[in-house]
Amino acid sequence: MKTKRPLILIVNDDGIAAPGIRVLIRLMNQLGDIIVVAPDKPQSGMSHAITLESPIFEQRVFMDSGSQIEYSCSGTPADCIKLALNKLVPRKPDLCVSGINHGSNSSINVLYSGTMAAALEASLEGVPSIGFSLLDHSKDADFYPSEEYISDIASKVIDKGLPLGICLNVNIPKLKKDQLKGVKICRQANGNWVEELQQKVNPHGKKYYWMAGYFENHDNGEDTDIWALENNYISVVPIKSDITAHSVIQELNYLKHG
Amino acid sequence: MKTKRPLILIVNDDGIAAPGIRVLIRLMNQLGDIIVVAPDKPQSGMSHAITLESPIFEQRVFMDSGSQIEYSCSGTPADCIKLALNKLVPRKPDLCVSGINHGSNSSINVLYSGTMAAALEASLEGVPSIGFSLLDHSKDADFYPSEEYISDIASKVIDKGLPLGICLNVNIPKLKKDQLKGVKICRQANGNWVEELQQKVNPHGKKYYWMAGYFENHDNGEDTDIWALENNYISVVPIKSDITAHSVIQELNYLKHG
Repeated sequence: MKTKRPLILIVNDDGIAAPGIRVLIRLMNQLGDIIVVAPDKPQSGMSHAITLESPIFEQRVFMDSGSQIEYSCSGTPADCIKLALNKLVPRKPDLCVSGINHGSNSSINVLYSGTMAAALEASLEGVPSIGFSLLDHSKDADFYPSEEYISDIASKVIDKGLPLGICLNVNIPKLKKDQLKGVKICRQANGNWVEELQQKVNPHGKKYYWMAGYFENHDNGEDTDIWALENNYISVVPIKSDITAHSVIQELNYLKHG
Repeated sequence: MKTKRPLILIVNDDGIAAPGIRVLIRLMNQLGDIIVVAPDKPQSGMSHAITLESPIFEQRVFMDSGSQIEYSCSGTPADCIKLALNKLVPRKPDLCVSGINHGSNSSINVLYSGTMAAALEASLEGVPSIGFSLLDHSKDADFYPSEEYISDIASKVIDKGLPLGICLNVNIPKLKKDQLKGVKICRQANGNWVEELQQKVNPHGKKYYWMAGYFENHDNGEDTDIWALENNYISVVPIKSDITAHSVIQELNYLKHG
């Protein structure tokens, strides 16, 4: 029997005031003692960026009536985790949860995601970690259908832990509760973004670009996160910090000099 | 026999004026036609960040007497690749090279690296890509000992290509030329950063932090990049964009609901 309530660290990339993290805080308050360290402004698409060239500030904040302790941080999602684990937590957390992200982090989007980089950063420090994302960019996104699943996955990870250096990328389709078919453990689908830069001209005649485009899935596997999401499942992809392509090490020996 | 000179895209994360990229441009000018699209300011530690909330600007620049065509870009290293491949190159490049980074991108540092994210981004678009890093942060770093190796690896990759979705993370120890023992194909060592945040107080009494700390290697394997570098080899780690931890998918089935 555990004598202490679990300590849960919460982070996100949409910023501390985003609706998604407020839902996650409410849910996690039922499972343990909560410390929130989240960016003071939106940090979508920040990936695993860390702040090297400028100082990082933090500040206690009081945003709602829950029992959590909250800090906003001027840095990136990965900075938030480093700051939390080095300076702000009283002991190593039993769990880190990131999100709930407003928008998908399935397939290749995991590489650009601040939400998932924060989870991965915590897992590097030995903290079992999960990133949650809802496939709805709207600020009025309805998180209700996903709540039971999020609490369930978080509870199970608190109980059982995760393999070292591995964290979970959980994506939730935008559906009503009775449309959700359950959870599927998946691999990351192979896809990419196309026609990504929209060109404009400013009032002074200077060209500039906005990141835009659309995602194309190239992977018909029924074991992928994209398949799961399109078929009304919540996708869970285990991701890891060792990005070595082990299977090709032998065949690259031709690169040796001479 | 190839009828055209190879087209080579060059990027970095230290910024277009950094000594490392100027060396890389000079070397690559001997191998093909060069387009440079590099950040207009230092972007170290930017990982795979992309710019979603602000516009991206580019500008033709003329920095030295070489035959390359150069653009600076207001965005991140990954933005530079997206901009280059979507808007600036006349055809798909035969090679993308990133760097030469001032400092190591071995082990877990690959996750924070803008240099390596740029290479990975190009490989996502089917361009064989290599990131080069010299283990010397100094702006007076001596790139000369590494030049022959860099040209050799780049030539071989132009000739043979790379497996799809895989790029190379090449790190070069800070040594004299006759001390370098050659090239070793490796896996990413398992290590992490410790005591990372240095606390200060500003003149108004407000606490802030600088990212600092030191790297600790936890991996004694002689097949790692850290081992290679400590033993006077140039390390080459193949890295991939599929970060799924395939080996644990089965054991996570307990997360299914109910």
